[in-house]
Amino acid sequence: MNIPQTCFPRVVIIGGGFAGLAVARGLEEQELQVVLIDKHNYHTFQPLLYQVATGGLEPDSIAFPLRKRFNDVENFYFRLAEVTGIDAEKKQISSTIGNLEYDYLVIATGSNTNFFGNTNVQKYAMEMKSVPQSLNIRSLILENFEEALLTSNLEDRKKLMNFVIVGGGPTGVELAGALAEMKKGILPKDYPDLDIRQMKINLIQSSGELLKGMSKKASEKAEDFLIKLGVDVWKNLRVLDYNGDMVTTNGEDHFRASTVIWAAGVKGEKIDGLTNECVIERANRYKVDGYNRVEGYKNVYAIGDVACMQSEKFPHGHPMMAQPAIQQGKLLAKNILAELKGKKQKPFKYNDKGSMATIGRNKAVVDLPKWRFQGVFAWFVWMFVHLFSLIGFRNKAVVFLNWVYNYIRFDRETRLIIRPYKNKNEYSFDTNVE
Amino acid sequence: MNIPQTCFPRVVIIGGGFAGLAVARGLEEQELQVVLIDKHNYHTFQPLLYQVATGGLEPDSIAFPLRKRFNDVENFYFRLAEVTGIDAEKKQISSTIGNLEYDYLVIATGSNTNFFGNTNVQKYAMEMKSVPQSLNIRSLILENFEEALLTSNLEDRKKLMNFVIVGGGPTGVELAGALAEMKKGILPKDYPDLDIRQMKINLIQSSGELLKGMSKKASEKAEDFLIKLGVDVWKNLRVLDYNGDMVTTNGEDHFRASTVIWAAGVKGEKIDGLTNECVIERANRYKVDGYNRVEGYKNVYAIGDVACMQSEKFPHGHPMMAQPAIQQGKLLAKNILAELKGKKQKPFKYNDKGSMATIGRNKAVVDLPKWRFQGVFAWFVWMFVHLFSLIGFRNKAVVFLNWVYNYIRFDRETRLIIRPYKNKNEYSFDTNVE
Repeated sequence: MNIPQTCFPRVVIIGGGFAGLAVARGLEEQELQVVLIDKHNYHTFQPLLYQVATGGLEPDSIAFPLRKRFNDVENFYFRLAEVTGIDAEKKQISSTIGNLEYDYLVIATGSNTNFFGNTNVQKYAMEMKSVPQSLNIRSLILENFEEALLTSNLEDRKKLMNFVIVGGGPTGVELAGALAEMKKGILPKDYPDLDIRQMKINLIQSSGELLKGMSKKASEKAEDFLIKLGVDVWKNLRVLDYNGDMVTTNGEDHFRASTVIWAAGVKGEKIDGLTNECVIERANRYKVDGYNRVEGYKNVYAIGDVACMQSEKFPHGHPMMAQPAIQQGKLLAKNILAELKGKKQKPFKYNDKGSMATIGRNKAVVDLPKWRFQGVFAWFVWMFVHLFSLIGFRNKAVVFLNWVYNYIRFDRETRLIIRPYKNKNEYSFDTNVE
Repeated sequence: MNIPQTCFPRVVIIGGGFAGLAVARGLEEQELQVVLIDKHNYHTFQPLLYQVATGGLEPDSIAFPLRKRFNDVENFYFRLAEVTGIDAEKKQISSTIGNLEYDYLVIATGSNTNFFGNTNVQKYAMEMKSVPQSLNIRSLILENFEEALLTSNLEDRKKLMNFVIVGGGPTGVELAGALAEMKKGILPKDYPDLDIRQMKINLIQSSGELLKGMSKKASEKAEDFLIKLGVDVWKNLRVLDYNGDMVTTNGEDHFRASTVIWAAGVKGEKIDGLTNECVIERANRYKVDGYNRVEGYKNVYAIGDVACMQSEKFPHGHPMMAQPAIQQGKLLAKNILAELKGKKQKPFKYNDKGSMATIGRNKAVVDLPKWRFQGVFAWFVWMFVHLFSLIGFRNKAVVFLNWVYNYIRFDRETRLIIRPYKNKNEYSFDTNVE
């Protein structure tokens, strides 16, 4: 990996998401060498991926170059690579660009889509955990509409205009709401020769409520907002299979649809190597102690989505969201520094700042620890918090500008098929074929 | 194509570039049916592609959804397709989505990269005529730097950091300048462990001057600016071949380089079908009369880059640039309407508004018909004209914001490898592999 050997201990951080970034920031300018490895050269602000997928934002506005974030930090190294294995005995990781020894290893690989072993769904459904995946969804939605125009077979057209979102968590709810707003304000204008009533947006949730982690009021209000926007909400319905044509469920309703977006679960992005059985917990996460130390290993830490820290309050670990990731990252940085200085480490205590979801224009739900509210004000709070959390002034400004524009004009202007998804073989992205 | 038959004559426009857009706009709300066909669902503002390639702008800010532009226009139809043939006898075109009959056919397919038959160069060099191609260049530049970090072989590292731009027209000059600014302000910070002096930017021009269509003063000043920015300008040197490793020339200098960008020529994007030999002119363009009628055909017009209208002043046709395309498009719309009303058509007369090129921060050259100037003021004029020419308020605002930010911060922040180019098989853009 061509990283110099110094007299400082080396901290290797795998993953530049919320967790990895927080720990790297906390270790800046210390007597440490920090190596951050990610398979992308940018940090992705995942909470806004659904807006990239629905043409509301450009991908570049929610991604931030990792090198830039650290380019004035001493003893910091970034490497663009995929880590393929961990050898805890040798204190070494292997990757697509070679091996590297560590003194401290921080696994912050986050999570990936969980298809619960259903290979059919994995093959045919779309996922939305990265920028390229979101762009694929954007392309597919628009390509399906273009195709719907061309068919005179009513059933085929309905299939092309039928959208199934599986999973009623924040991702599914926000995506369904955004699609419903496209249906309302944009697609009828763009496709005047289509009967837009044939477009259906189905949100399927296996349990009896949306936004399961939030309050009952938030869940009900979100459902109410979605229904008013024209989304068909299906509760207590479980998707069994999708063969690229038909979504089959455990109920009486099946769905013939060209687009299925799977937002029904995530699982930790485990790396091969820590073979000890005890380290793998529920949802493919590493079992960690109260200091985010992977149980059974020395100097190997896991933070964020990939870590499962069990406690009385969180028997299955903390929610796989940005806040626990950021807080664990910050604390871990402090704890590593404390250990180096021979001081006492502090155990992790999650400070639940609340959660929120947006359904559409003027429609959001916010649960703060002591205050719950829904509607216009919640929507402004949601926007402010997300804008504030974005990294970089340029990103904040571009997102703000888009939001103001979209709000005033009832528009989402980045509805561009830059890399076709469906016909990717036809218009491949080779240099020459274009 | 599922386009209704009406009592109005049907104008089919192939291509939504500057020329196609101008004619479509000119035919709005008339007693005509207008069908616009493009293989992208957006208009590309080609003059700023080099900024997308060098991380200064997001792709979405220079592309505008074609449907949106026309979504309140009656009797207008857009179709996303590639036109594969013209049958002038049947007055019909064929495409990837079926056939369509026309009353008037407007070919506005623009131009593509001209490799002058060199299949090696075509295979290994990058081109920059579309948004996906520009994003490929962006990815490749950054991927090469990431790779340069990893090699300890000096020759390989130099090769990875060696950039060869072939062609000293506006595209080559602007791209070389932008790369030089990345070398100066950004890459040394992002890659502190690389010796940035090893990065070379070579601009190769076969003739004795850069910016051939412009004034001698502009050409000299542009060269001067480039040299000051650290670009190696090679004049009177012709590239003979590139095998992916070595650029061979007709001189003594050869270049071992991982990145070669071919901006040495364009050719008309001809469509199969108009077989009559006389229609194809120099650079693969359709020979048209003074009204942009393709010679030998009735009701078939060609405008913009793909049209070659010869005159005493322009023996090889007009320059393949935005201005002639826009002016021909506007006039053709008027002439079609005139013909329908039995009025006299007007022949085309090119109003040369001048030309300009930017080399970098505060460095541009402008040739107006009666005034030539270079430097800071020229640079502001260049920016104003380009900002003003962009379609859509949102695009203008986002580009403006980026430019102000980049100017103040000496930055280009969208240096993101969103779709890897080199390792595209490794990280493919399949849904599941991501």
